[in-house]
Amino acid sequence: MSKGEHTRDAILVRAQFVASGAGLQGLSIGRLAADLGLSKSGLFAHFGSKEALQLAVLEAAAARFVAQVLSPALKRPSGVSRLKAVFENWLAWAANSERQGCLLVAATAELDDQDGPARDFLVAMQRDWLASLARIADKAARAGELDGALDREQFAYELQSILLGYHYAKRLFRDDKADTRARTAFARLLASASPENSA
Amino acid sequence: MSKGEHTRDAILVRAQFVASGAGLQGLSIGRLAADLGLSKSGLFAHFGSKEALQLAVLEAAAARFVAQVLSPALKRPSGVSRLKAVFENWLAWAANSERQGCLLVAATAELDDQDGPARDFLVAMQRDWLASLARIADKAARAGELDGALDREQFAYELQSILLGYHYAKRLFRDDKADTRARTAFARLLASASPENSA
Repeated sequence: MSKGEHTRDAILVRAQFVASGAGLQGLSIGRLAADLGLSKSGLFAHFGSKEALQLAVLEAAAARFVAQVLSPALKRPSGVSRLKAVFENWLAWAANSERQGCLLVAATAELDDQDGPARDFLVAMQRDWLASLARIADKAARAGELDGALDREQFAYELQSILLGYHYAKRLFRDDKADTRARTAFARLLASASPENSA
Repeated sequence: MSKGEHTRDAILVRAQFVASGAGLQGLSIGRLAADLGLSKSGLFAHFGSKEALQLAVLEAAAARFVAQVLSPALKRPSGVSRLKAVFENWLAWAANSERQGCLLVAATAELDDQDGPARDFLVAMQRDWLASLARIADKAARAGELDGALDREQFAYELQSILLGYHYAKRLFRDDKADTRARTAFARLLASASPENSA
């Protein structure tokens, strides 16, 4: 890694931390530069604009999300066990002490009314995520572990809803029961999608 | 209503609109004053600080939420029909063109790491909301319309998860299917809580 890449990386690590707490709008190039002992012009040389920095922060968070949540699950055997892995990875991600989970969920609420490249990236990333969940469910259904007639997109939507509910309970209420509540909801979703429940 | 109350009201209507798009942190007393043709000192006379303004905005949004979502449902007969009313009122609230629904959901993500009076208010308000959902479910269970052994808090948690999933799909993806997806998830939740499913 060159010195320039190393600096860019350090900026993004710090920027993700700041955005996790203060939102993407809370990113200030001046404050980031001061935090990292860089000049504002030095920081501008890496990102050019606040909008470009926001987009780079989202891209970095998305890459971490894929590496921590999706990729390890895809190494597991396909089927319900892979679904369970991706679910547990998401809980761990959202609860982690670096608050990275927070950033993407917060960004969905922050950017939903703000058109632009950051929003476009987030929409594409979240569509990919829901499509990945639907594909994992599809494999489980094709293997006979879930109902063959399962509506895969509806399943992905409901799984994502459980994850958002977990984030809400865990981070807003700091509720110790959030993990149990989310797992109970997920078990109910799986049970309702089981082959025994098919029409 | 006195002139002072009228001005305070006008500030809060405008501030809710701004915060719906830009977040509570996006509220600027200077910009609000300019939008409304007031002096900054005149606006400060009403709220004293940006923090006090943020809190007042949340309180105003919470009052509108109760008036539009909860109160009309409580006028309906208790039981499953009241649950359905509160569910449909929430969808209408989140989808409305004034984007008020957005404000409270966005605030949960924005404030979850930021201790202070605004966060305390939001936590208390959201606890009340979940407790109201649990109470409505409790009445339905006591009337025999839902399983008597139903875990009311879990039910409220899962209902809230469906509502958050709706907000996500509707506002981030601008997904026309969001209404159908949320209603399908809610029907599944009700079915799993029906007395026929009791152990």
